[in-house]
Amino acid sequence: MTLHSNALRDHACLIVHGPDQPGLVAAVTGLITRNKANIVTLDQYSDNPEGGAFFQRVVFHRPDLSAAMPELEADLEKTLGPYGMTWQLTDQSAPKRMAILASTSDHCLLELLWRHRRGELNVTIPMVISNHTNTAEDVRSFGIPFFHVPSQGPDKSAAEAEIVKLLAGNVDFVVLARYMQILSDDFLTNVGVPVINIHHSFLPAFIGAGPYKKAKERGVKLIGATSHYVTKDLDEGPIIEQDVARVTHAMSAGDLQSRGAYVERAVLSRAVQWHAEDRVIRHGNQTIVFT
Amino acid sequence: MTLHSNALRDHACLIVHGPDQPGLVAAVTGLITRNKANIVTLDQYSDNPEGGAFFQRVVFHRPDLSAAMPELEADLEKTLGPYGMTWQLTDQSAPKRMAILASTSDHCLLELLWRHRRGELNVTIPMVISNHTNTAEDVRSFGIPFFHVPSQGPDKSAAEAEIVKLLAGNVDFVVLARYMQILSDDFLTNVGVPVINIHHSFLPAFIGAGPYKKAKERGVKLIGATSHYVTKDLDEGPIIEQDVARVTHAMSAGDLQSRGAYVERAVLSRAVQWHAEDRVIRHGNQTIVFT
Amino acid sequence: MTLHSNALRDHACLIVHGPDQPGLVAAVTGLITRNKANIVTLDQYSDNPEGGAFFQRVVFHRPDLSAAMPELEADLEKTLGPYGMTWQLTDQSAPKRMAILASTSDHCLLELLWRHRRGELNVTIPMVISNHTNTAEDVRSFGIPFFHVPSQGPDKSAAEAEIVKLLAGNVDFVVLARYMQILSDDFLTNVGVPVINIHHSFLPAFIGAGPYKKAKERGVKLIGATSHYVTKDLDEGPIIEQDVARVTHAMSAGDLQSRGAYVERAVLSRAVQWHAEDRVIRHGNQTIVFT
Amino acid sequence: MTLHSNALRDHACLIVHGPDQPGLVAAVTGLITRNKANIVTLDQYSDNPEGGAFFQRVVFHRPDLSAAMPELEADLEKTLGPYGMTWQLTDQSAPKRMAILASTSDHCLLELLWRHRRGELNVTIPMVISNHTNTAEDVRSFGIPFFHVPSQGPDKSAAEAEIVKLLAGNVDFVVLARYMQILSDDFLTNVGVPVINIHHSFLPAFIGAGPYKKAKERGVKLIGATSHYVTKDLDEGPIIEQDVARVTHAMSAGDLQSRGAYVERAVLSRAVQWHAEDRVIRHGNQTIVFT
Repeated sequence: MTLHSNALRDHACLIVHGPDQPGLVAAVTGLITRNKANIVTLDQYSDNPEGGAFFQRVVFHRPDLSAAMPELEADLEKTLGPYGMTWQLTDQSAPKRMAILASTSDHCLLELLWRHRRGELNVTIPMVISNHTNTAEDVRSFGIPFFHVPSQGPDKSAAEAEIVKLLAGNVDFVVLARYMQILSDDFLTNVGVPVINIHHSFLPAFIGAGPYKKAKERGVKLIGATSHYVTKDLDEGPIIEQDVARVTHAMSAGDLQSRGAYVERAVLSRAVQWHAEDRVIRHGNQTIVFT
Repeated sequence: MTLHSNALRDHACLIVHGPDQPGLVAAVTGLITRNKANIVTLDQYSDNPEGGAFFQRVVFHRPDLSAAMPELEADLEKTLGPYGMTWQLTDQSAPKRMAILASTSDHCLLELLWRHRRGELNVTIPMVISNHTNTAEDVRSFGIPFFHVPSQGPDKSAAEAEIVKLLAGNVDFVVLARYMQILSDDFLTNVGVPVINIHHSFLPAFIGAGPYKKAKERGVKLIGATSHYVTKDLDEGPIIEQDVARVTHAMSAGDLQSRGAYVERAVLSRAVQWHAEDRVIRHGNQTIVFT
Repeated sequence: MTLHSNALRDHACLIVHGPDQPGLVAAVTGLITRNKANIVTLDQYSDNPEGGAFFQRVVFHRPDLSAAMPELEADLEKTLGPYGMTWQLTDQSAPKRMAILASTSDHCLLELLWRHRRGELNVTIPMVISNHTNTAEDVRSFGIPFFHVPSQGPDKSAAEAEIVKLLAGNVDFVVLARYMQILSDDFLTNVGVPVINIHHSFLPAFIGAGPYKKAKERGVKLIGATSHYVTKDLDEGPIIEQDVARVTHAMSAGDLQSRGAYVERAVLSRAVQWHAEDRVIRHGNQTIVFT
Repeated sequence: MTLHSNALRDHACLIVHGPDQPGLVAAVTGLITRNKANIVTLDQYSDNPEGGAFFQRVVFHRPDLSAAMPELEADLEKTLGPYGMTWQLTDQSAPKRMAILASTSDHCLLELLWRHRRGELNVTIPMVISNHTNTAEDVRSFGIPFFHVPSQGPDKSAAEAEIVKLLAGNVDFVVLARYMQILSDDFLTNVGVPVINIHHSFLPAFIGAGPYKKAKERGVKLIGATSHYVTKDLDEGPIIEQDVARVTHAMSAGDLQSRGAYVERAVLSRAVQWHAEDRVIRHGNQTIVFT
């Protein structure tokens, strides 16, 4: 939904998760009330009411939120500690800082820049990094810094180090918008923030390289795209969003790629928006998504 | 979702709506906690956090629910009264009683009977009433009583009176599964329970009779179906669910009708399931649907 | 589309495939014209206009078709022989004979029986065979013979032999409507007609047993179903049709199975209809589908 | 599908329509063969094999097409004249010239410019005309001329005259990419080429102004967009393409507008592509679309 910065002033998002147990919802909502805040939306999920895991997302409005944050955090610690819950409180008027990594393909990159310009993504974009230069002019026309970090040869460690240096302390999450380099485990560790990828297949079908070619060979009637958090297991991280498009025998692998580009950009956009709005909670290799 | 009667034992569904105001969620969840119940799911919506309307659906588990119902109801009255809220508490292990009214078309009727037999609709079906006899044998093969109430001539009052007599006290809601008679305002008043209809178009397009013929003439590229609560304004009641299917120039009005039948039965089934599970709240001429 | 037997009288379907070459379409359409027939629909596809494979489906109307069939076939042989094309001519007023194999699940089975009764599948159904008895009464209520062929123990050869004996000479194709036994290569050879299966996943994802459980574990956001021709490679045969439905984190593997049942029956129905109407041409491990 | 100019060299598209009659297909395909051309794709449709209207689209490859065009046209005249058919032959390597009219909204405009840059629309774009200036810089960054023609006051005749003067002789069709001015009948007559519009509702629902507001008030569960040819009857012209997106009670009219923008740009893009590739044939107030 279109975001108006004013509409988010004094709004906080609270994420709570941990072992489900009676009284939890009352404890959280009671806390919000006694802190003079008003609940705007509340979503929750328990994967098993008896002894399962509990997940909750509450957006509330609290006049003079910034001033009240320390008190709120102290109360949360005191209230949720005894329940053994993990929690995270974010001021929604402070957008997350998102870096985009791209290669030659521009469709996912431009879609994100465009939606951002339309005010539909609650993020700032401090930088775009690419191992190619073809998108530099487009990126800069959106008023966003572009950095070129080439990635040649088998040893990617220098390039990865340069990227980490650019990102360090400057971003809250990273989006791989068809970035065609496999990142090392070290990179993921060093970058230290969530990394979201878009894979050009309906995972777990057609894992790895060349999914549209594989889809054509297998003769599938639908192609898809998957956005997921990157983990050290390639194409195996927690899935955030997926979608598909219908294809026919008359389409070539190139046609599939062209058609698929529109699925990719839609799927990645939704995943990024949901992550930016703290709607996605990772749970093992799965996600809870409160849309 | 497939319902196992055991799974619903000691589960209650609480619907609360009225003017939004601070502390409401805490009041409800506090009430549930102090009544020794555990929240299973909680959905809420406010159409405007400042001075809007508030809607909440809470499913909770309370051991020995039946015994505790009077206490719960008294506490609800005491707690929510001061807020000026409307509330409704239902024992989910007591399925709603659903009557089906049908004519010659069997696709929506059979879909409901079939889903019911598969345990996917939390209802009982005390009767099917039709102004034709062609579906009698099918209906009875599901073990469900079939009543034939013919509806000839311009004056439908005798037929309507007979239907009201059959329904009175025996059902909690009525489904018009392609029942091809227009019901009078008096009927709606006398029957006294919600009536759900399936209209064979994507309302508000093609209101009234012959929507597939109209759709063919207009040359639309998608056809649809709409399930809504029946009010005295024909085809104007609150919409519960809609869906569409793609069509092409090569399809005749008859083909549209045939293709549309599958949209109709899916849309009506979802609407019935959501109503049966207290997921739909009427609000003026709109619905809040917590799926 | 709904089939009216009269509408198919004197209609033939011609399938032509082989190496693409200039003049082919003119040769076929010229042949139809000189045989006093009128083309009703014509679809064609070439996977490469220069040296690729050519596929064509022509439905034409020829008064007194039965009498003219021998002449038509002789002319086809004479005309298409020099081009090295394979062809097949079928009288559309003679529906294909379809056997259904099922197990305990009834959703795909009943959907096919139901659509058949509504006149939407241009087939006859000489028999349903199941390794369980729970669906016998339902099947017979549609006026269709039901045969019980149990399949216990590791050696399925006796059961398969009995099924082959029932089918031999009596059917034109076989549909596995959630038949939960793996058929041997020998069975496929001996049955000698096309066998269509419905797999409860979006192939090639989740090949093999328990796809809904696997889907839940992988945390996918869409589930699917795939209808394909059965070959000796399990779940690897040419795909005819696929579709998907959206799921969420809140659904259990059982919910996925329940939701998926509706995708399965829709996908299988479309595949069966297209096969029955000679709309599907196998080409290696792929299909050309003229819808 | 992605277009490579080389792939379209020496390719022609032939559209034939008129009264259906025996021998028509053979006449056309025979003509193509004797003119040394090879059929690449062929689609046809008859709205009634007995006495109905016939529509055919043939793409064929003819070496040295430009040189052969006069002969082909003469042969078409001679061959199809006796049948009373209308025909149109276009050289596919000569893209149509498309003008875009826009207002302040940029989503449909940018989508078209972007797809064009990706090589997915077989058109040239000689100009964008807007009654506002906000998109000028974006348009010119794609290397496309931008003209500002303000449209104030009740009398639009001067603005329309200026637009007609810009377009005259320079374009083959016009796209209204959320152009928020109602064009006069005179404009349509004077511009003399097809005009394609995108309407922000699922026509015929919510005709006229403010469809998202109306959709919110009616409480629909799906919103849509419709691309159609513009005629003198507002929002009543032949529909080329439609699509929908799911919405919920929780979305405001503004959210619907934002969500709908993505449906609008997809629907308009498909309509433009199909028109540019001569896939759309107007027939009364309907369209035949060979996709």
